[in-house]
Order: sequence, then C-alpha cells, then structure tokens
Amino acid sequence: MKLLRYGNKGFERPGMLDEAGKLRDLSGVVPDIAGAVLSPDSLKSLLELDASTLPMVDGPYRIGPCVGGVGKFICIGLNYSDHAAESGMAVPKEPVVFMKATSSIIGPDDDVMIPRDSLKTDWEVELGVVIGKEAKYVDEADALSYVAGYCVVNDLSERAFQLEGTGQWVKGKSADTFGPIGPWLVTTDEVSDPQSLRLWLEVDGHRFQDGTTATMVFGVAHLVSYLSRYMSLQPGDIISTGTPPGVGLGQKPPVYLKAGSKMKLGIDGLGEQAQNVIAYWPQI
Amino acid sequence: MKLLRYGNKGFERPGMLDEAGKLRDLSGVVPDIAGAVLSPDSLKSLLELDASTLPMVDGPYRIGPCVGGVGKFICIGLNYSDHAAESGMAVPKEPVVFMKATSSIIGPDDDVMIPRDSLKTDWEVELGVVIGKEAKYVDEADALSYVAGYCVVNDLSERAFQLEGTGQWVKGKSADTFGPIGPWLVTTDEVSDPQSLRLWLEVDGHRFQDGTTATMVFGVAHLVSYLSRYMSLQPGDIISTGTPPGVGLGQKPPVYLKAGSKMKLGIDGLGEQAQNVIAYWPQI
Repeated sequence: MKLLRYGNKGFERPGMLDEAGKLRDLSGVVPDIAGAVLSPDSLKSLLELDASTLPMVDGPYRIGPCVGGVGKFICIGLNYSDHAAESGMAVPKEPVVFMKATSSIIGPDDDVMIPRDSLKTDWEVELGVVIGKEAKYVDEADALSYVAGYCVVNDLSERAFQLEGTGQWVKGKSADTFGPIGPWLVTTDEVSDPQSLRLWLEVDGHRFQDGTTATMVFGVAHLVSYLSRYMSLQPGDIISTGTPPGVGLGQKPPVYLKAGSKMKLGIDGLGEQAQNVIAYWPQI
Repeated sequence: MKLLRYGNKGFERPGMLDEAGKLRDLSGVVPDIAGAVLSPDSLKSLLELDASTLPMVDGPYRIGPCVGGVGKFICIGLNYSDHAAESGMAVPKEPVVFMKATSSIIGPDDDVMIPRDSLKTDWEVELGVVIGKEAKYVDEADALSYVAGYCVVNDLSERAFQLEGTGQWVKGKSADTFGPIGPWLVTTDEVSDPQSLRLWLEVDGHRFQDGTTATMVFGVAHLVSYLSRYMSLQPGDIISTGTPPGVGLGQKPPVYLKAGSKMKLGIDGLGEQAQNVIAYWPQI
C-alpha cells in the first residue's frame, strides 16, 4: 500500500494510490498519515479498503512529506562500509546515531535551499524507516513488527557545518529543506526484504550514488532494536538508515550542490524524488 | 507570568498562577501552553487577563511538562567553562549543539527512570529557553524578542551511552524520563536578565551544583542567534543552555544516580523540581 500526503504546505491531506496508481483521497477515513494512523490495526483497516470507492483526486497536486507530525528524525551515520571509506572514517563498531531537526522536513519534490554561508551542501539518498507502534527495548527478532513502512529520504548535509566546527553533527543536518521524505510511505506488505533494495541519486543527470541496502553495516531490524535501547520510538518517528557511497564529499575533488542543480533520487518500489536547488535569499 | 500544564500524563490542561500563587485554569482561554499560544501577541493577551476571574483549581494536582508539543529539544554542551574543565574537555570555540529526544520530556516532579544496563546516569540543572516565534537568521541584538520565557530543565545524561560508545551524544541524552521541564514557563516579563540567575541541584540533600548563568560561555541571546543559522526555531522549541559544574561525572570518584536517589533542583524565580529515581523494571 502506498500512502501519501498531498496539497499545499501545512495543509496536506491524506491519500493513497489505487491499483492503477491514481490518487484517492483518504480524508474521509483518517485525519492524516501520522501517529496512531500508522498502527498495525489501522494500516490493516486501510489495506482492506476498496480504493475504488474513495474520491479520486484529479489534476496536478503537490506531494507533501509522506508522514505528518514526525516526532523524531533519527539518522544513522556511516552505515555503508564503502561510504565510511570515502568519508575517511572507520566503519563503526556500533551504529552512529544523530538527529536531524524535524523542521527540515519537506515534500519529495520541493525546492532544496542552500543555507546562508554554505559552500558544502551535499546529498545522501537513504532508506527511511517509519515506526508504526511504540518500541522500547525490542528484540531484533521482533523489531520489524514495529515498522509501518518505508520511504525515500534525502539526508541533505552541509559538510562544513557538520564536520569543521565544534561539536556534533546536528548543525550540518538540520537546515530548513534538508529533509525531503516520500513520495510515499510504502507499507511493509509491499516490501518483502528491506535489505535488498537498490537506491540511487543523480545530480544534473550524473549518477553519483548507485547502491543497495544489502551492503548496510547494520540492517533495519538491528537499528530499530538498537535505538529502542536508548530512546523509545513512537509512531511516526523516522529512522534514516545511512547512505551508500557517492556523496559529494567523497568525489575527488569534492562536488557540492549549487543554485540551479537538479537532484533525482529513488529506491526500488518506494518511488522517486526530484528537487531543484535554490540559494538562500538574499545572498549576503 | 507563570504558565503551567497540570493533570494526568497526556491529558494536561493549561493553567497559570495568580498573584497569590494559586493555580487558575486556562482551558477556557487557550487550548494548551504550546505552539502559537507562545507568540508575543498571545502572551500579551494572557498577561492582560485578570487571573482572579479564572476558575481556581483546588486540591492536589500533578504538574506536567510546562510546554506541550515540543518540536525540538536542543541542548548546548560544555557551556560553563568550569563544567568543561570537570568533564576533561576544552571550552569550545563555538557552541556545541546536540539534541535530546522529545520523548524524554516529563513533568518536573515525575519519577526519573534509570535505563536498562545503565551504570552512569547523571544530573544537569540547566536554564531552558522556550521559543515564542519562528527564528531564522536572527541577529543577536534581536534574539531575545524570539523568546517566550524560561524554565528549569534537568538534562539527565547516561555517561557511558553518551561518551563511551561510538558516535554522537544523543544516545546518552534521550532515554524516557531524561527531560524534566518546569514547573513553570516563566515569561520574559518576569526575567529581567537571563544571565544573572542562580541555579542549583541537590541529590539526597547534598548540594552538588550551585552556579549562576552569569558564567555561561555563550549567553542566551548568542545561542538563539547562533542556532537560527543552522536550523529554524519554532514556537515551543526548547533550548537547554548547558550546566554549571558539579555533575556526577565530575566528582572524584564519580557519583551516579541509583534507584532511591532523590533530586531537587531549581533556578531563581523559575521554581523547583523534585524527582525520585527509580530503576528500569524488570531488572535484567
């Protein structure tokens, strides 16, 4: 099942794709794609709907972030061994965990804005894991039952803010527009194995990233279990599971986004994103 | 003005203290102490209320977190030079920024739970800054106008999770119950200078922390301005501004919380917190 949120920013409505890939409005059924709507029972009810009985949405529409009211946007660093190598860092013994500000979240095709004073804005295609029920001290064997579904995430990163100042990575990960999610929340019934998905990213038509979740250091089940030892996870929380090689920082010489750059990225079965890059205005 | 939220967990109602320090119910006036209610215009309206016309709340009541729907819980590390020294770390050149999971937030007198496998759960009394209107690229000179008010924060920290594993601090800062805030959101009209507040913390009657915000490395106005360059700040976001010396990690030998410990902490004019420490159950 492919769930999404459509409409103007801040006023998104819930929807789902029908068998023909057409958008059907869900606002008569659920208030949003968020929180308790992501629970196993709720998703089961949505799966049992006959989508053809729902109102069809005609005409062009903006796609918003695929989950509303995200409480935590948790990221895993250096989770593909070859990406760690290109970043000049060791493969970690345990997952490296950091946060992205939830205020960075935008829709999959919204513009990405280079922050003021940024020279090193970079891309990262990642598999996003959306939590469906509260998880606390869950075993790895059960961990996937806490997952509502998956989505594409672009974990935009300002490398100077992240790595060259003092302290923690959150400063380089949290600018407004640095967190496109979607287009869809694809529920687990359509993702038989989260560890066998191809993921890719192109900038201006050049394919920089082309990997597979098969080469993750720590898989989705391990990550959900591991994180649940350090914080409880709530429905609507998103875990972005790290990026394969091919980020701008890893090029020789490094390549970064600039105003006018066009990104395209996607994951098998989870859809595609397309973002135009714009500069913070006014430039000073 | 002292605003608070009272009632059972998850069902808190908005309230304010009247001139006699009695609780008055605000639920007929505002939906919550959260989001847009924290805007300058909204707070001005609340200030103009005659509290004696509001319903008095009789009898004992639980105090909840003083702000609802917190979007971001941002912390500043090593922001008192003598605390940096006791932690064996250098005074940073720029603010050290990290996040606490918003799911760690509890009321000021709720029990604090030592997480499973924790041996090093520690305390940190901190001045909390509550944002009142969206802040993005704000100048230091204007920064305090984006602040709705202040509160006491206990930034509980598991030192092994924070410092001894791989990666970033968020793992040691985010356990459930690790973020007591309140008792009150004290609006700026009552805090003439956030850089002259005494703050203290006791465990089992022993005063471990006794400092003043006068010795912060980076003051509140600088922090709001600085953070607003890296992420936009929304109404209800909380910035916890770092802790003075006297944490458990800094004792010789280190002292950590255990089941049965009792914490008391407070800041001049912002009220006091009192937490009993309990162990994660079942112990395994």
